[in-house]
Amino acid sequence: MAENEIIYGKRAVIEALRSGVPVRRVCIADNIVRDSMVSDILRKAEHAGVGVDFVPRKRIEELSGAGFSSSQGVVAEAKPFRYASLADVIAAANVASGLGGGAAGSSQGALVVLCDHITDAGNLGAIARSAESVGASGIIIPNKRSAQVTPATYKTSAGAVAHLPIAQVPNLKRALDELKDAGFWVVGATEHAHDALWDTDMAGRIVLVVGNEHEGISDLVLKNCDFACKLPQRGEISSLNVAQASTVFMYEWLRQNQALACG
Amino acid sequence: MAENEIIYGKRAVIEALRSGVPVRRVCIADNIVRDSMVSDILRKAEHAGVGVDFVPRKRIEELSGAGFSSSQGVVAEAKPFRYASLADVIAAANVASGLGGGAAGSSQGALVVLCDHITDAGNLGAIARSAESVGASGIIIPNKRSAQVTPATYKTSAGAVAHLPIAQVPNLKRALDELKDAGFWVVGATEHAHDALWDTDMAGRIVLVVGNEHEGISDLVLKNCDFACKLPQRGEISSLNVAQASTVFMYEWLRQNQALACG
Repeated sequence: MAENEIIYGKRAVIEALRSGVPVRRVCIADNIVRDSMVSDILRKAEHAGVGVDFVPRKRIEELSGAGFSSSQGVVAEAKPFRYASLADVIAAANVASGLGGGAAGSSQGALVVLCDHITDAGNLGAIARSAESVGASGIIIPNKRSAQVTPATYKTSAGAVAHLPIAQVPNLKRALDELKDAGFWVVGATEHAHDALWDTDMAGRIVLVVGNEHEGISDLVLKNCDFACKLPQRGEISSLNVAQASTVFMYEWLRQNQALACG
Repeated sequence: MAENEIIYGKRAVIEALRSGVPVRRVCIADNIVRDSMVSDILRKAEHAGVGVDFVPRKRIEELSGAGFSSSQGVVAEAKPFRYASLADVIAAANVASGLGGGAAGSSQGALVVLCDHITDAGNLGAIARSAESVGASGIIIPNKRSAQVTPATYKTSAGAVAHLPIAQVPNLKRALDELKDAGFWVVGATEHAHDALWDTDMAGRIVLVVGNEHEGISDLVLKNCDFACKLPQRGEISSLNVAQASTVFMYEWLRQNQALACG
């Protein structure tokens, strides 16, 4: 979503409005049949404060770049996703761990999730959903060869991407160096590790590194982790996918840090 | 999959063969163009020991109940899924917790997951995948108003349903009574609970009860749980879906039981 993203088709536009995609405006063909889905679009756009323009059918075709039957006479223009900077994520972590003087501050640590070239948009969305739900301070992704935030990510993250700083960085190693300088310990989640996640100290300010769906964490990034740990498996055939596994790691961080806060 | 299930279309048949669906036979139109997907089907069928019949195009239409363009000239017949009995699941748990005298026996407890009317097939598959991966002894589902095992579940479970006993029962309360008689403690996962999952004792033989996507665990089933506990959330907008949440509960069971086994 570096530039305005075009969403077309009734169902896709309804989904975008429902899941909090930052829609700039909705255009509807002026000769459209006002069925229940069109009514739903008008209602949801009003609720979200999004303007609706009725335009000639030809204009819908120009905007969507698709045939009229694909667009069904409805096009929405989404604003580009506003990525955070690494400094924003560190600032959010400072508030979370009580260093920023914010009211939300406490001594409960902070969590940042660094995705080392996750390529599936559904996985990125699911990781964002879990991250928001444990109270992580942000997500770091590389700006190349990685899934990025698209309108679809709003849906797969259940809207979490709108509430969580996501930073796009040119160089993961340099980002890890900055995070270490800011007092984070870096934990790499890899099946090649010797220790189980629950034997790894995740108290405090933690960067959780999760790897690509096929190749895991790259050698260079792994070399820059302070610890590596794995999710034990007892099954004979299954292993979790990266989004499910990441969720278990994030909850282990929460478990260790809540225990800390309580006792 | 109470009766033979019919799968048609090249991609669907390839996926069924790939994910371990118990296919009885594959029928291919005798006038089919032998493209790369057809070759793939022939290769995978041979590898799985599944017979292939070349039949007239008209027979494909009869078998698939669909037009020739939908079936693409390829139909597979899957055997019904063989549900386990509750007794099978308890027997598997006895082996897992060392009561059955099996070589795999150990004092590491046992886990059974009871799904109180999960309706989404994707969620049931994901729960089965996680259950297999932590070494659970089986899954219990009700025989009505619940997602059942279909060819699609093989894919969403990454094949785990073929390796894990899944019992279909007419009455969940009675199943819980039998499990309690067999020495299980019943833990209900519900956001209305007071205690966090990690403050709940899950050592030993545990039934984890997870509820319907919209309504959670029913009152009757919840009343029959020995403990109820929740997944703490720190986020402002997100909560996990039932499959993700179940995964975290299952790994908490594994954590507590591995800690027990090790020390």
